[in-house]
This record gives sequence, structure tokens and C-alpha cells, in this order.
Amino acid sequence: MQPLESCSWVRQAGPLWQQATTARFLDALADGSLPAETFHRWLAQDYYFADALNSFQAIALAKTPRDLRKPLLQGLVALGAEMDWFESVAATSGVNLGVAQHPICRHYCDFLLRVAYIESYPILLMVLFGVEASYLAAWSRLRPGGPYLDFIRRWSSPEFAEYVSSLRALAEQHPRESSQAYFEEVLNHERDFWTMAWEG
Amino acid sequence: MQPLESCSWVRQAGPLWQQATTARFLDALADGSLPAETFHRWLAQDYYFADALNSFQAIALAKTPRDLRKPLLQGLVALGAEMDWFESVAATSGVNLGVAQHPICRHYCDFLLRVAYIESYPILLMVLFGVEASYLAAWSRLRPGGPYLDFIRRWSSPEFAEYVSSLRALAEQHPRESSQAYFEEVLNHERDFWTMAWEG
Amino acid sequence: MQPLESCSWVRQAGPLWQQATTARFLDALADGSLPAETFHRWLAQDYYFADALNSFQAIALAKTPRDLRKPLLQGLVALGAEMDWFESVAATSGVNLGVAQHPICRHYCDFLLRVAYIESYPILLMVLFGVEASYLAAWSRLRPGGPYLDFIRRWSSPEFAEYVSSLRALAEQHPRESSQAYFEEVLNHERDFWTMAWEG
Amino acid sequence: MQPLESCSWVRQAGPLWQQATTARFLDALADGSLPAETFHRWLAQDYYFADALNSFQAIALAKTPRDLRKPLLQGLVALGAEMDWFESVAATSGVNLGVAQHPICRHYCDFLLRVAYIESYPILLMVLFGVEASYLAAWSRLRPGGPYLDFIRRWSSPEFAEYVSSLRALAEQHPRESSQAYFEEVLNHERDFWTMAWEG
Repeated sequence: MQPLESCSWVRQAGPLWQQATTARFLDALADGSLPAETFHRWLAQDYYFADALNSFQAIALAKTPRDLRKPLLQGLVALGAEMDWFESVAATSGVNLGVAQHPICRHYCDFLLRVAYIESYPILLMVLFGVEASYLAAWSRLRPGGPYLDFIRRWSSPEFAEYVSSLRALAEQHPRESSQAYFEEVLNHERDFWTMAWEG
Repeated sequence: MQPLESCSWVRQAGPLWQQATTARFLDALADGSLPAETFHRWLAQDYYFADALNSFQAIALAKTPRDLRKPLLQGLVALGAEMDWFESVAATSGVNLGVAQHPICRHYCDFLLRVAYIESYPILLMVLFGVEASYLAAWSRLRPGGPYLDFIRRWSSPEFAEYVSSLRALAEQHPRESSQAYFEEVLNHERDFWTMAWEG
Repeated sequence: MQPLESCSWVRQAGPLWQQATTARFLDALADGSLPAETFHRWLAQDYYFADALNSFQAIALAKTPRDLRKPLLQGLVALGAEMDWFESVAATSGVNLGVAQHPICRHYCDFLLRVAYIESYPILLMVLFGVEASYLAAWSRLRPGGPYLDFIRRWSSPEFAEYVSSLRALAEQHPRESSQAYFEEVLNHERDFWTMAWEG
Repeated sequence: MQPLESCSWVRQAGPLWQQATTARFLDALADGSLPAETFHRWLAQDYYFADALNSFQAIALAKTPRDLRKPLLQGLVALGAEMDWFESVAATSGVNLGVAQHPICRHYCDFLLRVAYIESYPILLMVLFGVEASYLAAWSRLRPGGPYLDFIRRWSSPEFAEYVSSLRALAEQHPRESSQAYFEEVLNHERDFWTMAWEG
């Protein structure tokens, strides 16, 4: 598997890639200094995000030709299981998943759903790759340990990397003129989301 | 599990239900008299239909609230596997899945995709129930046997009946004023599709 | 203005073009032999069609880049006025516009709305051109006269021809691989609609 | 015509209504102290917004039943003319309408287009009313005068007020549980947009 940094979209994004994949929230999560309420806030907002991403994945699958659908179906199933897991973590930690959606989270979800309905599948493949690749990169930078080890392991696992790799292949096979712009728009949202997770 | 005939939509559909769930094509398939080329024709058209239904299922999942999504995800996975199976049957039988789409098939697919994009999830649940329930009923009438036993078993199995039952529960929990009209529109398309399968 | 028959899509459509633009219904309408109830049936179905076309036009406008929108807005306004006119003709002739939609009409509307939501604007421009060009050709073949002179004049007028011409220019500037297939699909629906108008 | 402040959605929005309809940008515009480059920045971003709103209006028209479409068509035509006017103002003032879209503007546009494709027409009517009503209120607070008198007059005119009034009637006739939440989401975007216009 080739490192994400070899991807031309990542290289062209310049410093934005690092901004979108490093976060004080994550550093604190990995070194054990993250306040519980900050984690809970992130969990509830990330659950909103996951719900929108699930719709995005489904519409991407609906628009993508049959012979390219396998990784999309796999991702849809995985995210469904992940949301089950979020719900059980929330239940055991007493986190209320029904708090108000933060505007920053809402902007990201609006973006995903706008793109899902309006753009054609090559752009959707690119956006999905951008979302998942930046997530993989962000969690993979962390030293595995601390109270949130399960989270770190999940999004830096070889299985997740394999999935991102298959999305990358799909996206690279269907480049479009606006691919870079969409990739960077995803990174902007990722960066803002991590800032919101830390600052509230 | 309650018999489909106890469902109020089925009862209100009157003779249309029987028209949509009995077919000379199916009788011939079950008694072994179906010409191979008729079966092949159906297979290729049904594959087009399955592809559109797959998109329909995905958009239905995208629009349906999280707590109702489980059966939709299950159906999406099952149809993905079914299309794999169609492809392998076609490959081993020398059936060309790339023949022209029949206008009758196209009308049904246009209907499904129009509804998927335009209607809200309660209608989508109803339409999906209509499609799957009439399929279950049609194949369940047949005596299991003959060269197409695998097909008969697949769509009259307890697992498939269980899936239809869960769709029925969802649809019945979300009735809408236009539900009956949509249910009957599905039955019209089913009836026409079976007629096309037999007559070409 | 170049004759429609010089358009490569028309030429490649072969005999389908003539089938879609000649109709016993229209011949009878022009020579005064059309039964009133046949006219009324057509009017009610065409009103359903106009309603779907209006939605199609609006979505096409929504998807089309700003600098190409002028003819689409013009067409939207013209169709709105045409529907007003249909309503007044229906009111004065005692035609019930609320009769059941015919399956043939429904297939055409499902097609238009499926395409509107799923395809990108170059295909929408092509489909709109196909719909309007075949209508212009069909009505322009008629000798102006008889009780329905207003109808003949409306859809064979220089203004309507000018509008079709501007749609043609847009479609020709944005050809796609599937343009011909979509053009012919429109012609199939037009042919079936005229047959339905005559036969019921 | 009833004052907007009598509208229950406005009253329930509390201080958000004032925040969304007063702006340092507007005060400076009316008292003649607005720097030209600030005006130009706003013009370019507002043009992006108008383009997205135009798509929103078109999709709203496509989804709205025929008998309610008149004000939507009128708004579509008016916005088309307004964009022509923006283009001519930009051309004569040397404003580049092709500058990068500001993230705040993008968030608003993503919101509008997400809602347009996903929600049903009663919500779309509400959102359109929210957009136009807050605009009318914001510009109507200004003393007519100064170099931008044409702008102030346009969006505080009796014609514009009449249009907003007809949208209000439509929205009030089709209330939905989520109407207030959507109305307030519009106001949040309006407030942020005005802040961005001033601060860049």
C-alpha cells in the first residue's frame, strides 16, 4: 500500500493536509489529558456527522456503476456497525447523543449532503476518499495507548487502511477537473471539525 | 408471521394482487416447460431491474432515519450478493447481460428511481415492501422443483419472508395518504414485467 | 434557422423521428374529424405531462450554469402560461383535468423526472430539446385550420421554433456519449403518447 | 400587509431576528461610509449566493404543486433579472465576480442546496420566506439615500414586500414541525453573511 502522502491530491493540498490531520483534541486524547466532557462533546457531534456520512455513502452507492460498488457497500456496512458502537459507548458513558448540532458540524453535513445529491459519482468517490483518508492519517499519527485506545486502533487499523486504499484507487481512476477543489474543501471541514471538538 | 393476504393494502388492491403475483412464465419455470431462451431473456431484464432496485434501496436508506435503517441495510447487502449470483449464473449459462433494456423494464426502473429521488421515506418503505412482497408471493405459489429450484427456493425462503415481514412492519408504521396508490402502481409494474418475461 | 431534419440526432434516429412526429390523432384534429371526447382525453393527459415537464424544466434550470439559463427560464415562463391556458380551455369545455393518469402518460412523466434528478445538465438540455423539437415538428406538419387552429398555431409558431432552435444550440454545444440514446428514448415516449391519445 | 414582526416565526426567533437583519455593513452602506472594496467584496459573494438561491427557487418550484407555483415563478424571474443587474454593476464598477467563494458564503449555499434536494415543498417555502423576509427587513431599516440608493430601494420596495407577503402566506398555510428550526437556521446564515461582508 502506498503512503497517502504520495497521493497527488495530498501533495497539492500543501499545508492544508497537515492542518486537517493533526489536532490538539487528538493529542490530548492520546496522551490521556483529554477532559471527559470534551470527549463527550466530540462523540455527540461525530455521531451527527456519521449519520450524514451514512446517507452520503448510500447515495454514492446509488449513483456508482455496479462494478465499482463493492468498497462502497463495505463502507456502508462498516459505518452502520460503527454507529451501533457509538450508541453503546454513549449509553455506557452517559453521553446524550441528542444535544444540539454544532454549526461547524452542520456545515460539514450540509456540504456532504449537497454534494451527494448534486454531483456525479466520480466526485462522490473523491469526497469519500478525502473524508476517510484524512481520518486515517489523523488517527494513525497517534501513539496507541490511553483510555481511548479502542478509538485509536479502529481508525488506524490495517482494515481501515485497506478500505481507504480501495477508495483511493476508485477516485484516482475517475479524476475530474474539480477533484482537487473538492478534496481541499473536505480538508477545510476536517480542520474546522477538530478545532470545534477542542474549543467547543 | 401474518399472511400477506391479511395486509390491508393487499386486500384493497383486489384482483390486481393476483395479477401481479401469478404468471405463465413462473408456471412454466416450475413445471420444467420454460424454454431456455425465455429464461435467459428474463434473467437479463431482471438484472437491469435489480440494478435499479439496488439504487432505490440505497436512496431509501439515505432518507430513512437511523433507527429504521437495519432492514434496509440488510436488503442492500442481500441484493448485492444476489447480483453476484446473477452474474455467475449468466456467465455459466452463456447469457449476455448487456442486451438492450426492454421498454417495460425501463418503465419499472424509471418509476423506482423517480420515486426514490422525489418521495419521502414513508413512501419509499411502502414501495420497497410492495416490490418484495409481490415477489415473495409469486415465487411462494410454486411447487419447489425442476431445473430452477434454486431460484424458487431463494424467493420463497423463510429468510426472504422474514425480510418482507420487517419491511411490512416499517411500511405499516408509516402510512401515508398515497400509500395505496403507490402499492398498486408497483403491482401494475410487476404484472407487466411478468407478461414481458413470457411474451418478450 | 436550420431545418430540424439537418440535426444529426434526428437523422440518426431514422424512422423513429417520423413515428414520433406523425399521428392519427393530429391528422384528425387538423381535418376536423376528431371526436370531442378524444380531444378531451388528450387534453387531460397532456396537462399531466405539462405538469411533469414543468418540474423537469425547473430542475434543468437549477442544474444548468448561469450563462446558459436564459432559454430555460423563458421555457419555464411559457409553460406556466400554457398551463393557465389549458385550465381555461378545460373550464370552458367542461373537461375534467382530474381524471386518472394513463399508464403511458405516467411512463413518460416517470422518465422525465428520473432523468431530471439523476442526470447532469447536458443530458437535460438534450432531453428538453428532444421533447420540444418533436412537438414542433408534429404540429408544423399540419395544415392550419379547423376547430383547433389555436393549438396548431401555438406549436408551429415562429416563437416556438425560435425557442426550439435555442435549445438545439445548447444541446449541440454539450454532446454526451448517451445523447443519442436519450433523444431516441424521448421519441419512443412521444410516439406512444400520440398512440394513446388516439386509442385511449 | 401585516408587519413581519407579527409573524409567529419571527417572534419565536427572539433576538436572532434582529441579529440577522441589522448589520454594520448595511449601516455603513446607507450612511455613505462604506469602503468601495468592502462593497465589491460583498457584491461578489452575494452573486455566488444569488446563483445558489436561483437553483433553490427552481427546485422549490419543481416540487411545489401547480396551484401554489405562481409566486415561485415570479421570484425566479425576478432573481434572474437581478443577476443580470449584478453583472452589469460588476462590469461597470470593475468588480471581479470570479473571486474565490468565502467559506461563510459556501456554508449558506450548501445549506440551501442540501435543503432544496432533500426536503419537501412546505419546508422549501418556509426557507425561501425566511431568506427573503430577512432581506426585506434588513434593507427596509435603512434611510434611503447615499451612493447605493438603488440597492436600498430594490429590497425595500412595495413590490418586494408584496412578494415576501405572498411567500409568507404560502409558508403559513403549510406549517411543519421543523419550520421554526429551519427559519432560525436561515437567520443564523444571514447574520453570519452580513458579518462576513463587513469583516471579510
